[in-house]
Amino acid sequence: MRTLKLTIAYDGTDFNGWQSQPQGRTVQQEFEVALSRVTGEAIRVVGSGRTDAGVHALGQVVSFETASLHDNNTFKRALNAELPDDIVVLSVEDAPPGFHAIRAATHKRYRYAIHFGRTRDVFQLRYAWQVPYQLDIERMSRAGGLLLGKHDFSSFEGSKSVTLSSVRTIYAIDTTRPSLDRPCDIHIEVEADGFLYNMVRAIVGTLVAVGRGKQNEAWVRHVLEARDRSAAGITAPAAGLYLLWVKYDER
Amino acid sequence: MRTLKLTIAYDGTDFNGWQSQPQGRTVQQEFEVALSRVTGEAIRVVGSGRTDAGVHALGQVVSFETASLHDNNTFKRALNAELPDDIVVLSVEDAPPGFHAIRAATHKRYRYAIHFGRTRDVFQLRYAWQVPYQLDIERMSRAGGLLLGKHDFSSFEGSKSVTLSSVRTIYAIDTTRPSLDRPCDIHIEVEADGFLYNMVRAIVGTLVAVGRGKQNEAWVRHVLEARDRSAAGITAPAAGLYLLWVKYDER
Repeated sequence: MRTLKLTIAYDGTDFNGWQSQPQGRTVQQEFEVALSRVTGEAIRVVGSGRTDAGVHALGQVVSFETASLHDNNTFKRALNAELPDDIVVLSVEDAPPGFHAIRAATHKRYRYAIHFGRTRDVFQLRYAWQVPYQLDIERMSRAGGLLLGKHDFSSFEGSKSVTLSSVRTIYAIDTTRPSLDRPCDIHIEVEADGFLYNMVRAIVGTLVAVGRGKQNEAWVRHVLEARDRSAAGITAPAAGLYLLWVKYDER
Repeated sequence: MRTLKLTIAYDGTDFNGWQSQPQGRTVQQEFEVALSRVTGEAIRVVGSGRTDAGVHALGQVVSFETASLHDNNTFKRALNAELPDDIVVLSVEDAPPGFHAIRAATHKRYRYAIHFGRTRDVFQLRYAWQVPYQLDIERMSRAGGLLLGKHDFSSFEGSKSVTLSSVRTIYAIDTTRPSLDRPCDIHIEVEADGFLYNMVRAIVGTLVAVGRGKQNEAWVRHVLEARDRSAAGITAPAAGLYLLWVKYDER
């Protein structure tokens, strides 16, 4: 047996999230079906992040053990031929025995895409949160800065959460206009040692309240200290969220 | 009664094309349902181009008569509230009595989006033709130039066509890399006095054969002169095609 680490991307729109469940199409189920066709084995995989329905991935990491003797490039091409069009394998690498895509993760980065427009952009429905008000990205950047570091992020934790501790360390929150071609687009990227349930979407909802002028920057510090979800902004819609990448302890 | 001219956009992916028909969801049907809710009238509209299933519009023009007394801005907002998320009204204007979105059209422009990549991009499935080979856009530009002017375009006419004449005048074919951010994207825009069935998609399939080096530039002249669909390249997939705009005789 060997352990593999795969990096995959998917358009989350037509999935009921990552995790296998009785109802609806999920990324994990589709992936395991393709994997069984390629290997002839019934394999249960581990994904680094259990993305919700509508959430996308540009660099989800998947780990599993297999007896397959395919070289990694053949494995990638065979899987891509079996997978549905909205999932793609970007890379296949050997990993140390026992490598586990969740447990070994040390850093993760998510992107959240916002599109400003008074009239809806029909081509962004699946891929961004469309807001009809101008956002001040300098204000949002400064407000995001107040969340950097190690804190109890209970105020940004969805109620479905089952984690024991709400303490996480945020290493970066970058609010940018990513494209000269598309000046109405804003990206908020958040990098941390781990994320609570709906944490990025709650942070984005909070920063948007600041960016549109409904709240001042210092309010974000108040939200953080409240340790109460109702203190923060709304949960931004799933469609704008992308799991960008996951980093691992190399030992 | 007054005559209105509306400009609308839609993501064509989840429609069985523009034109009303017994089976499947169409843009025209959805539009007429929303219009009847806003006006209380049963109105049959005319669309400037009968886009196929999967084809998008950034500037489709729709004309109809109504007794509605809403001002144009109210009309636009009311329609957008009633329309499904993948159709949007961009503008509402008064038109001269008898204005007809097909008959009065003098120029139309389509865009075709191509994405180069050896691994599929899951976020482009609905919006571009993904080709796994590098394309030489200078070759494609020069080959496209051979199609400019007034010609019999039978070689680029789909077999479903019912038009009497296959003569059209192409005013421009522009092959560009539209974005510095996205160097793997190519746009081919074609402007003409009118288009035959599947004409843009046949031109694109032909230019791609030149761009990837399967055919030389002069072959395009041979294709045009053959007046035979089988002489040209393949029909490019619907997902990459966008109706950009339509111009009208202002008299």
